[in-house]
Amino acid sequence: MDTLKTKIDFIIEIDKIKKIFRQTRLFDNSRHENDAEHSWHLAVMTIVLADYADRSIDVLKTVKMVLIHDLVEIDAGDTFLYDKNKQDKKNKELKAAERIFGMLPEETGSEFHALWQEFEERETPEAQFAAALDRMEPLMQNCLTNGFAWKKHGIKVHQVKEANRHIENGSRELWNFAQKMIDDAVKKGYLEK
Amino acid sequence: MDTLKTKIDFIIEIDKIKKIFRQTRLFDNSRHENDAEHSWHLAVMTIVLADYADRSIDVLKTVKMVLIHDLVEIDAGDTFLYDKNKQDKKNKELKAAERIFGMLPEETGSEFHALWQEFEERETPEAQFAAALDRMEPLMQNCLTNGFAWKKHGIKVHQVKEANRHIENGSRELWNFAQKMIDDAVKKGYLEK
Repeated sequence: MDTLKTKIDFIIEIDKIKKIFRQTRLFDNSRHENDAEHSWHLAVMTIVLADYADRSIDVLKTVKMVLIHDLVEIDAGDTFLYDKNKQDKKNKELKAAERIFGMLPEETGSEFHALWQEFEERETPEAQFAAALDRMEPLMQNCLTNGFAWKKHGIKVHQVKEANRHIENGSRELWNFAQKMIDDAVKKGYLEK
Repeated sequence: MDTLKTKIDFIIEIDKIKKIFRQTRLFDNSRHENDAEHSWHLAVMTIVLADYADRSIDVLKTVKMVLIHDLVEIDAGDTFLYDKNKQDKKNKELKAAERIFGMLPEETGSEFHALWQEFEERETPEAQFAAALDRMEPLMQNCLTNGFAWKKHGIKVHQVKEANRHIENGSRELWNFAQKMIDDAVKKGYLEK
């Protein structure tokens, strides 16, 4: 097996993530964001905000995790945070992980698959911090776009607090900041009580 | 100074990179790629291809470098690889680096500014490997889109070999692979002799 060619084929395949669009929009509200842009933003956020993790994190591991956490959406599509059908999503993503990480040589493929599972399980310090950032970015996007995705889907403040609460498991300071953003969004009328 | 607020403001500012479009197109030729997508792709490539660096690299440092290497284009814009006016570009980018990295608290801002300079100078193992990937991705894009940007700008094979030659400084094996891609592009008529 030509290892380099195999890796290049994977690099070509994952280009498709640039066409998976999310519910939230760029901070200037000009258009929806895609998964590649979102993953890039989380990676930079990991580096800039690492000091705010409550438990010490391996920064490289966390960056790897956020860079690849949405690759399964190439096959499974984007699921809105407030969607109900979580089991169907889970099954699709498991199959997607097998196929996509399975394109890589064994060592790298297993590493990526394990990182993705760790992210999904949200138990380690790295996964909890990554999950916190994965909530912070769309929260900021909703606040800066007058509540675009919230209004579109009729989301209320108690749902936002519930769905974003696990930011606290990664960073109490980020959760404090997030709560202020949510309260401010309610005051401005971007989010219904 | 509220450090967290300052960092969040930086995170909001750099969203603008998602609107800086490059000369090359997605692998499926559907549209041009933007700098956030490009930076995400280089970060994943760094992780997947790190073993191909001829000199040992610090992977986290290299990933940081590629994630932030194009932030200056928020102010300076994208410059096509084969453009002539390099001095004007350089001056604009220096000013942009001052402003954009200057938004961060001193420690992180200095680190990012130094990483960007190191990338530009292409002397360390990390910068040479990052620069190799920064050439590999658009080369692959041109090869997979029937030479889109090459044809548009009338670029010839000697220019492509000259502009991409420094891939060899980061990885001889990647340069061998790249040369085969270029030869294949000529054979298929995507690139003129």
